Amino acid sequence: MARQNIYDNEIFFAGYSKIREKENNANELFEKPALFSLLPNLTGKTVIDLGCGFGEHCMEYVRKGAASVVGIDISEKMLAVAEAKNSHPKITYLHTPMEEVSSIKVKFDLAVSSLAIQYVEDYQTLVHDIHRLLNDDGLFVFSQEHPMNTSFSGDDRWTRDAKGHKLHANISNYGVEGEYESRWFVDHVKKYHRTFSTIVNTLIDNGFVIEKIAEPMPSEEFLLKYPEYDDLLHKPDFLLIKAGKAV
Amino acid sequence: MARQNIYDNEIFFAGYSKIREKENNANELFEKPALFSLLPNLTGKTVIDLGCGFGEHCMEYVRKGAASVVGIDISEKMLAVAEAKNSHPKITYLHTPMEEVSSIKVKFDLAVSSLAIQYVEDYQTLVHDIHRLLNDDGLFVFSQEHPMNTSFSGDDRWTRDAKGHKLHANISNYGVEGEYESRWFVDHVKKYHRTFSTIVNTLIDNGFVIEKIAEPMPSEEFLLKYPEYDDLLHKPDFLLIKAGKAV
Repeated sequence: MARQNIYDNEIFFAGYSKIREKENNANELFEKPALFSLLPNLTGKTVIDLGCGFGEHCMEYVRKGAASVVGIDISEKMLAVAEAKNSHPKITYLHTPMEEVSSIKVKFDLAVSSLAIQYVEDYQTLVHDIHRLLNDDGLFVFSQEHPMNTSFSGDDRWTRDAKGHKLHANISNYGVEGEYESRWFVDHVKKYHRTFSTIVNTLIDNGFVIEKIAEPMPSEEFLLKYPEYDDLLHKPDFLLIKAGKAV
Repeated sequence: MARQNIYDNEIFFAGYSKIREKENNANELFEKPALFSLLPNLTGKTVIDLGCGFGEHCMEYVRKGAASVVGIDISEKMLAVAEAKNSHPKITYLHTPMEEVSSIKVKFDLAVSSLAIQYVEDYQTLVHDIHRLLNDDGLFVFSQEHPMNTSFSGDDRWTRDAKGHKLHANISNYGVEGEYESRWFVDHVKKYHRTFSTIVNTLIDNGFVIEKIAEPMPSEEFLLKYPEYDDLLHKPDFLLIKAGKAV
């Protein structure tokens, strides 16, 4: 099965680095707060971050009291930044793709993954492997692109009025699962669309109990400050799930 | 809180009766098989059907071995048809709106609801009441309009090509929950839009464990026979959930 390492593509890496530097991007404003709101108290917990990228989250987990953090990523470029900017005696970075997480033989209290799972083709095996990676009362918390976001691969994701304001999201092929290609800095970034029911049922079938689902949306107060995010009311960007290991 | 009894409106009732008589409607082809696939073995079970309508499902539950079935509905017209066409010594029809289900003091092994919950304004209280209505190992199985279906209240739900073929679904205001009005035989049928996360989290918060989610889609084989249903691949019509009472 192909493992995609788009983050080591130089153009992609440069583009990605740039948007992550920008304050007030959608990740910072919506995905990250939602992800952290789903985390348990981290004091004394052992944590694995699947697709850790630059390691910023790993550092936060340490700051929040984690006993130890393992960050894994497929991209050596990303891990080099993580080692340079976010190293800590309690953090171990491993150059391991999520698809090979079964090679890790220790267990964790918490597995977290931020916006990486949509790049993995074999979700079923990944979920199985993560379940095996957790202690008996372990938790799995992840974010991914929302299925309403990954279900359209064409160029006209929005219908706009004459002034360019977004009227509605154009959604097609929500029911057609599998690989699609999108352009994000470079052509042919492969992502895998799965429906809401597939995402949830695969967790349940592999022994997880769904504890909470989040689809972060801007509040009215938030929109007064950042009116440009009103398009999220039409179609959320992110889906997050907190699931416990059923014992 | 207003309880909507659109089914006793004469024009609505006539229109509804007519489509339900038609073979091969979306309910028969997608919703009903999906609902029944989520049901447990009914042998000896006590069942309540919330929003039972014409009582066809109640009869099926008896045929499948249910010990007793209570069917409740807000509409006297619907219940008159149920009594005339689907009466059985094991079935009791009650003229009780779902919003007053807490008035029923016996408990059930299974609560089922087919395409009725989107008419209920106070979903939180409904879920709380249904949880209380179940025996300790009880199940709640329901279908409702899919949130991608209830999130658009305008007239142009689809964008079509010159030949009228549906290109994509137009979805707006998915993140805006609450009442919206749609035209279905008559003006101003009130339905209540809720996001996936609200639907699922409310169940969990009220003591349910999610066992399975379904978004029925046509298979390739099915589309050879009924090609007109390919629009469901863009946007599912139905969402179904099977939830167990956590003990």
